[in-house]
Amino acid sequence: MKRYNVGVVGALGAVGTEMMKILEQRDFPVERIKPLDLKENEGKKVSFKGREVEVKAAGEGAFRDLDIALFSAGEGASHKLAPVAVAEGCIVIDNSNAFRMAPRVPLVIPEVNPEDVLWHEGIIANPNCSTTQMLVVLKPLHDKYVIKRIVVSTYQAVSGSGLPGIAELERQLRAYLEEQELEVNVYPHQIAFNAIPHIDSFMDNGYTKEEMKMVHETHKILHNGEISISPTAVRIPVIRCHSEALNIETKKPIDAEDAKKVLSRAPGIKVLDDVSTNIYPLAAKLVGTDEVYVGRVRQDFSVKNGINIWIVADNLRKGAALNAVQIAETLIRYKKV
Amino acid sequence: MKRYNVGVVGALGAVGTEMMKILEQRDFPVERIKPLDLKENEGKKVSFKGREVEVKAAGEGAFRDLDIALFSAGEGASHKLAPVAVAEGCIVIDNSNAFRMAPRVPLVIPEVNPEDVLWHEGIIANPNCSTTQMLVVLKPLHDKYVIKRIVVSTYQAVSGSGLPGIAELERQLRAYLEEQELEVNVYPHQIAFNAIPHIDSFMDNGYTKEEMKMVHETHKILHNGEISISPTAVRIPVIRCHSEALNIETKKPIDAEDAKKVLSRAPGIKVLDDVSTNIYPLAAKLVGTDEVYVGRVRQDFSVKNGINIWIVADNLRKGAALNAVQIAETLIRYKKV
Repeated sequence: MKRYNVGVVGALGAVGTEMMKILEQRDFPVERIKPLDLKENEGKKVSFKGREVEVKAAGEGAFRDLDIALFSAGEGASHKLAPVAVAEGCIVIDNSNAFRMAPRVPLVIPEVNPEDVLWHEGIIANPNCSTTQMLVVLKPLHDKYVIKRIVVSTYQAVSGSGLPGIAELERQLRAYLEEQELEVNVYPHQIAFNAIPHIDSFMDNGYTKEEMKMVHETHKILHNGEISISPTAVRIPVIRCHSEALNIETKKPIDAEDAKKVLSRAPGIKVLDDVSTNIYPLAAKLVGTDEVYVGRVRQDFSVKNGINIWIVADNLRKGAALNAVQIAETLIRYKKV
Repeated sequence: MKRYNVGVVGALGAVGTEMMKILEQRDFPVERIKPLDLKENEGKKVSFKGREVEVKAAGEGAFRDLDIALFSAGEGASHKLAPVAVAEGCIVIDNSNAFRMAPRVPLVIPEVNPEDVLWHEGIIANPNCSTTQMLVVLKPLHDKYVIKRIVVSTYQAVSGSGLPGIAELERQLRAYLEEQELEVNVYPHQIAFNAIPHIDSFMDNGYTKEEMKMVHETHKILHNGEISISPTAVRIPVIRCHSEALNIETKKPIDAEDAKKVLSRAPGIKVLDDVSTNIYPLAAKLVGTDEVYVGRVRQDFSVKNGINIWIVADNLRKGAALNAVQIAETLIRYKKV
């Protein structure tokens, strides 16, 4: 079996750390791992398969010996370095927003549109975390019932802002319990004991970029601009795992019990739904898992054809690092690397 | 001006404490205040207008010297004691779920249906917290645009479960920061760092009672069973103030800017909406306020006539204690006490 030289750009970040872990856990055919990060972090060590590996500076020349580079170092770093990596002969799987909507860059969720890797020209984009978990669930429903409209409200974890988001929440909680003043650095407002309806920046239409990503990325991934999506994206004081309340209206008749069966057979999904024993997906319980968890599947009595569901996924894994590694696996399966 | 003897049943609870505070803050015409609670709490002291007042046991005979009793001691206490209070000549304003859907009991939000106090027969019910804040906002929109359907996702604070809910969250956060095991007592699952889509118990249709309250109470309060409501009620680790993401579809054309003007002129509402300066309603900032705060008013591009809004209100005040006191004020205004 062929083995690959794999780079991880942003190896010290929340998603980068998870990427290294997932490459190891899934026994990805790594010939050599090359953790890359900011120049000032050069020489730091990260662990991979029981060995300490030295972090190198991400920059020109760093990609020459690599087959695949997983990028998660922010939009700026991707804009700057992804073209460099491609020029140096490396395939880039980019977790940032930099290239997601670029017409010549495929945007891929392996359970949804794996064949889109076939037309890549060097860069493949990883969708936004809140889009990915939503689409893993919508795809099998769309195939059977034809989705007409979605109203989605998100309950997003602070790790979506990386390690600084987690540190900010913990610092504020500690200050609160010690009756000290809360300092606000990472988010526009206090995140402890709050629900902030503001993720990424605001656009002219009154929606945030985070919300509009859910609209535009869905259309691109499903190759279908007809599905209407009405999103509200909210940050809450959860460390890890995003939850979403999804209201789904379909063109064909949909029955909650039948939809549950469809979901339980679909790839990448686990149905956790037995309200008689208080079983439904929960952020605090699903840290470190790989699937998108679905529960509270129930008929929507307010429309002709509709259901409500509650979904949870680990935003650092399926929402980011895992999906990126799965894209790399898909490239291997299709012999495109 | 006539003054009244006012009892507060459950005076030591989260809502009861707030009721005492609000009677004082609004200078309600109190002749004598009588805090009532469980027999074992008899003799404890609570403060009212700078004086210490002794708590009496709530039970037979306790209501004979009262004109109005504000109840917030749970559904069981209301079922047992509200009829006793009425028999002893006292008007009951009940914050529990006990009588909300009883056909001969008005369910009142003073900004929405004040005239319903006119037909009371001794008991007037205070709606559920998540219903109240939603309806204060829906009423002026319904009057102008005729609401067809609502999809609502809630972000509810632990104080909705009273003082034990607050204590549970704080205990779990403290344990987490001290790297101790988290104990779960009040909620079916850990509430720290979690989003629990389960408030009150589950019904046969897959919805929780909390969710169905939002449906049935809306129909009763608006005297209109035609508005369709699709709710998801979620508890999050916020201490106080419930947030709600409301997707509103109307029969008549609705424009976000116009809707904002309608809302800014409506009673009990404050519009906090300037995303260019990160202004929108926030739970952590609105503790202790009286209005329902509305922001993120934006066009819903997924339907012909629709908007999305984000609303926040203090669940212990407008969602409970304040609305109860406002019902008492309405009774006085209509000379029904």
